Amino acid sequence: MEIHYHDYLQLDKILNAQDLESKKHNLEAHDEMLFIVIHQAYELWFKQLHFETDSIVAIMSRPELNDNSPELQTVVHRLNRMITILRLLVHQIDVMETMTPMDFLDFRDRLRPASGFQSWQFKELEAKLGLKFDQRHGKEYYTSQLRQEHVDLIKKAEGGNSLLQLLNTWLERMPFFDEEENWKSFVVHNKAEGVHPFWAEYRYQYSNSLADAEKNNSEDFDELVIKNGKEKERTISAKAARAALFIMLYRGYPMLQLPFQLLNALLEIDEQLSSWRYRHMNMVHRMIGRRIGTGGSSGKDYLKAAADKHYIFREIAQLNSFLIERRKLPLLPREIGIRLGFAGNNVKE
Amino acid sequence: MEIHYHDYLQLDKILNAQDLESKKHNLEAHDEMLFIVIHQAYELWFKQLHFETDSIVAIMSRPELNDNSPELQTVVHRLNRMITILRLLVHQIDVMETMTPMDFLDFRDRLRPASGFQSWQFKELEAKLGLKFDQRHGKEYYTSQLRQEHVDLIKKAEGGNSLLQLLNTWLERMPFFDEEENWKSFVVHNKAEGVHPFWAEYRYQYSNSLADAEKNNSEDFDELVIKNGKEKERTISAKAARAALFIMLYRGYPMLQLPFQLLNALLEIDEQLSSWRYRHMNMVHRMIGRRIGTGGSSGKDYLKAAADKHYIFREIAQLNSFLIERRKLPLLPREIGIRLGFAGNNVKE
Amino acid sequence: MEIHYHDYLQLDKILNAQDLESKKHNLEAHDEMLFIVIHQAYELWFKQLHFETDSIVAIMSRPELNDNSPELQTVVHRLNRMITILRLLVHQIDVMETMTPMDFLDFRDRLRPASGFQSWQFKELEAKLGLKFDQRHGKEYYTSQLRQEHVDLIKKAEGGNSLLQLLNTWLERMPFFDEEENWKSFVVHNKAEGVHPFWAEYRYQYSNSLADAEKNNSEDFDELVIKNGKEKERTISAKAARAALFIMLYRGYPMLQLPFQLLNALLEIDEQLSSWRYRHMNMVHRMIGRRIGTGGSSGKDYLKAAADKHYIFREIAQLNSFLIERRKLPLLPREIGIRLGFAGNNVKE
Amino acid sequence: MEIHYHDYLQLDKILNAQDLESKKHNLEAHDEMLFIVIHQAYELWFKQLHFETDSIVAIMSRPELNDNSPELQTVVHRLNRMITILRLLVHQIDVMETMTPMDFLDFRDRLRPASGFQSWQFKELEAKLGLKFDQRHGKEYYTSQLRQEHVDLIKKAEGGNSLLQLLNTWLERMPFFDEEENWKSFVVHNKAEGVHPFWAEYRYQYSNSLADAEKNNSEDFDELVIKNGKEKERTISAKAARAALFIMLYRGYPMLQLPFQLLNALLEIDEQLSSWRYRHMNMVHRMIGRRIGTGGSSGKDYLKAAADKHYIFREIAQLNSFLIERRKLPLLPREIGIRLGFAGNNVKE
Repeated sequence: MEIHYHDYLQLDKILNAQDLESKKHNLEAHDEMLFIVIHQAYELWFKQLHFETDSIVAIMSRPELNDNSPELQTVVHRLNRMITILRLLVHQIDVMETMTPMDFLDFRDRLRPASGFQSWQFKELEAKLGLKFDQRHGKEYYTSQLRQEHVDLIKKAEGGNSLLQLLNTWLERMPFFDEEENWKSFVVHNKAEGVHPFWAEYRYQYSNSLADAEKNNSEDFDELVIKNGKEKERTISAKAARAALFIMLYRGYPMLQLPFQLLNALLEIDEQLSSWRYRHMNMVHRMIGRRIGTGGSSGKDYLKAAADKHYIFREIAQLNSFLIERRKLPLLPREIGIRLGFAGNNVKE
Repeated sequence: MEIHYHDYLQLDKILNAQDLESKKHNLEAHDEMLFIVIHQAYELWFKQLHFETDSIVAIMSRPELNDNSPELQTVVHRLNRMITILRLLVHQIDVMETMTPMDFLDFRDRLRPASGFQSWQFKELEAKLGLKFDQRHGKEYYTSQLRQEHVDLIKKAEGGNSLLQLLNTWLERMPFFDEEENWKSFVVHNKAEGVHPFWAEYRYQYSNSLADAEKNNSEDFDELVIKNGKEKERTISAKAARAALFIMLYRGYPMLQLPFQLLNALLEIDEQLSSWRYRHMNMVHRMIGRRIGTGGSSGKDYLKAAADKHYIFREIAQLNSFLIERRKLPLLPREIGIRLGFAGNNVKE
Repeated sequence: MEIHYHDYLQLDKILNAQDLESKKHNLEAHDEMLFIVIHQAYELWFKQLHFETDSIVAIMSRPELNDNSPELQTVVHRLNRMITILRLLVHQIDVMETMTPMDFLDFRDRLRPASGFQSWQFKELEAKLGLKFDQRHGKEYYTSQLRQEHVDLIKKAEGGNSLLQLLNTWLERMPFFDEEENWKSFVVHNKAEGVHPFWAEYRYQYSNSLADAEKNNSEDFDELVIKNGKEKERTISAKAARAALFIMLYRGYPMLQLPFQLLNALLEIDEQLSSWRYRHMNMVHRMIGRRIGTGGSSGKDYLKAAADKHYIFREIAQLNSFLIERRKLPLLPREIGIRLGFAGNNVKE
Repeated sequence: MEIHYHDYLQLDKILNAQDLESKKHNLEAHDEMLFIVIHQAYELWFKQLHFETDSIVAIMSRPELNDNSPELQTVVHRLNRMITILRLLVHQIDVMETMTPMDFLDFRDRLRPASGFQSWQFKELEAKLGLKFDQRHGKEYYTSQLRQEHVDLIKKAEGGNSLLQLLNTWLERMPFFDEEENWKSFVVHNKAEGVHPFWAEYRYQYSNSLADAEKNNSEDFDELVIKNGKEKERTISAKAARAALFIMLYRGYPMLQLPFQLLNALLEIDEQLSSWRYRHMNMVHRMIGRRIGTGGSSGKDYLKAAADKHYIFREIAQLNSFLIERRKLPLLPREIGIRLGFAGNNVKE
């Protein structure tokens, strides 16, 4: 049977889903159409972000996921797509800003208490990516205006395997440090009990690279990478942190190329989400100033706090504090080099 | 009654309007979801562009429209919003490009003959803005795949008052040249019968400003601005062209500020539409190469021809060929200066 | 004499101004070239922003500046150009982000203590726009690393007429409220001594429009718009604030169109500067984490504080809190309407 | 020795390289500053693009370049940086468009015959990437306004190893088809003498996948991929084309991931260059209409022809016409699979 564009896209539904509240009150406000359409466009894209996230979570849940496989390539490709979509969503705020505050006032009072704060898809997405209830600004507050069915979806996402948790598991699985045989030849300046020779050596090199004013970075390093410090606050284990740092340091090796692209994409997602919240906050501020949003709260404050605090992969970002110059990197044992995709020689980019 | 975001945006409709054809054939292709969502987002924005265009057309249809009124301000504001939306639509192609050709092949055959070429909203929009059947690449071709009800909508738009026609009427209404009394003092170097003294003088100045290699610009000037030449091809009258050129030249006068912003916005709309077609064409080329699109044609060729030919306000753009240096502009009579918003003195920006 | 592109642009200078420090140390780091070029591009654009700002300041300094004149049109046009440049500068961060933290480490230590924090052009620009010493995060800190000659430039800018001050003066000059004769017919529900009848009435209408939770907005309104409260913190006078609010409310009138575009452009400049600082901060964070920048400080903290506090036109932004619905706006006296560009009737957009 | 930002960036040079011609003629035109600064910014970025291209060419010239090595990773990373820069350059046209045609007329005549057409860096870049003299629109024309020293640079680039040539060599080196032993088990439906079994089979599958209207694609396929047809026009050999197509088809295999990213990046560079030319052309058209540019020619026509014809990696782009559905891909022999990074199984993404 022939398929027609109009039916295929179900345009009868999509293009007939805009009913202006201001019209129902006989106070038709021209800009309400824009308000509806832009939010519908956001929700369409949120659906797409969910679709990509779900597929990534499904792949990352496979116990046999190989670090250089087409599956991991697919994960990186889809994360990059998510980034591209997020950039578009940031840009989309430009369109919202063509609505002036007085244009908004023309229909604002008709919408109460509906507000973007009730976008359950966005909150569910944060949860799927790995934002935990405890990290939320205002804790319970973020679900206070949602329907039970949508709260349930978010709670389910919080309870399930988030991308962050799967990342942690996947990182912890990295085999190289456990291959004791291969590390026999590795030279360590400063051995430490219970610490793998590579990390003992790296800690020594890192510590030497610090400027005077940076000296207490060493403690942070120990806390995050060596010991399992600050247990309650942290979201990835020290073991996973070590694997991630190793990937960042030796990303030149074939086996670590895709893993590095993966980590980088996650940081970029956090950065785009943060940009979106920040521009969103500025836009809300410009639109309603100190007035109260249709959702009954000062939207600006929530968005600001979220922009400052809701970094999901923040411990991965922190690892950037613990890098050293490439030419001072410890030379890996030849056997490990082979395991990572080719023989010998420290990696030079 | 309290309004909830979810109902207000009719998300039950919007988020349940994605049925994958590939899934129906048990050959689920992950990227088909993106394909559907992005086209739905495009159609949502097309709806918004129609909504803005309709409101602009309604304002421009009022016989008493004043050149400095809030109505004209509203027109300019909404045209600028359309530009902002068009920029977003150009950017949106970045998202489509995250789909690789092989990802597309995974479901392409399931869609035939549906294709973006069947987007009647886009064609109707072109018609409302002023694109005529005769200017269309391939003439009848552009409606060949549409349903009768959608063809009718487009034909109706082509038959009605397009923005371009209303612009023509509005420009022709410009009163200043008809005020004979006010031009008595105006000095003309080269009078010409049947030509208003201002234009006789301007033609003289323009002609003097031309470099040798540009000399036949004078003929183009006469054709477009003085006589009503090339009648069949042209879309605005010589009278309207004169008014538009006058606005461009003397835009420093208060009464001409908004009219200038209006003309500029129309050129920008053409430029964004052109960018959209061009990037779209490149994207299609990259996606299917010399293969045939789901619509059964070489999408690239149509898009290329449209990008080259479908300029709607092209005669306004051509007027940019007929400008001269600001300091050589004829000094307007004092009375005309007052009519344009303040006394005397040639305008300097 | 014939001019050649190469000489005209002085490309011998421009293209030979990149000396890599890492090369001098025989540790050539590929990415240092990007680091130099991108900062040079920033400084070129800062020069252009200064050039535009200076020309705007010169126009705004003219005592006879007319609200509907080509001069004001020029101001708005150039402010919009500045916005377009600022958007580009925000985008430019994407290019910087193609440098990974380890690529940066390859030459970071060679640059100390040079850092972007020493961009005196940027700080001078902030000062010219209106950022005062007292509003600076960390006060003296911001000049601590600059040469005396550059500190002097900034101090001079702080001492001179900033765009903000000129805006204040220009707003205070608005004549309409002083034309007592014209306001005789104006109806006031709630007179108040020493308060102009329009503002007495507007305060009444505004207060009625507030939701319960917004009630103390009335006090803010009085503080900022009626009394000259919070004298030390404020940067525009109550008189100027009233003029600005009036412009925002009645922007449909011909005489207020350009003034409204002006106010809007200033808010957009603040927003783009804020976006730039925020993305810059995120980029720095990703590049050096908790390490110390080449300038010896935690660049991130300064940038974050600046992004949160360095809003220059913040009182104009606050006025958005004091708007009411268009259909509830007080009807202006007929005479005032004429003065604003046409007779009677409340403005509807 | 301490380094200061101001000296490090040689700002005394950079910020003192703007001399307005209009000022020398005592006809100072405000917008000439923008004209100079934006072109200098372009030339700075062109220098950076050369720097990246040179480094990529150096790496690609190494005979021992490994397909999965850090070197290839570096190539891909730097190509992606070039793309990011090109996107910025496209965006930069927005800034140029804040100059209106009349603003340009204020100084245009002072610049003759200088014009952007004299940007030898850009033409040299095209040559380094692989654009040959024969492919140039108007042949000799493109160097007609350049100084001999710059013509020499371009000729040298045309004579040397371009990125396109190195790509060809690198692709031809692909070893897998030569490993006869490994293909013994491969099943072919339609053997052909002198044709490798894989390509005989692939041609069969491709041909079956074509719709009726696409049937002569088979000839194009033979011409470009099997025989070395159209020798004079083509820029990569059939052997290289086969390797590139193989990479596109089997990019899921670990060894082909980076090669695929490389090919994709090259297509993106062509697309961005094309976008730049197209928007540039539109901008020039809007600025001078049918007037002649400062360079004495109709800039628009050259830019349009270049946008249509100057695709450098066009044969790689054409390969997208020759893909088939992933699930119909021939299954590779187990031994080849191992050579490509893992055992057996057709790749599913």
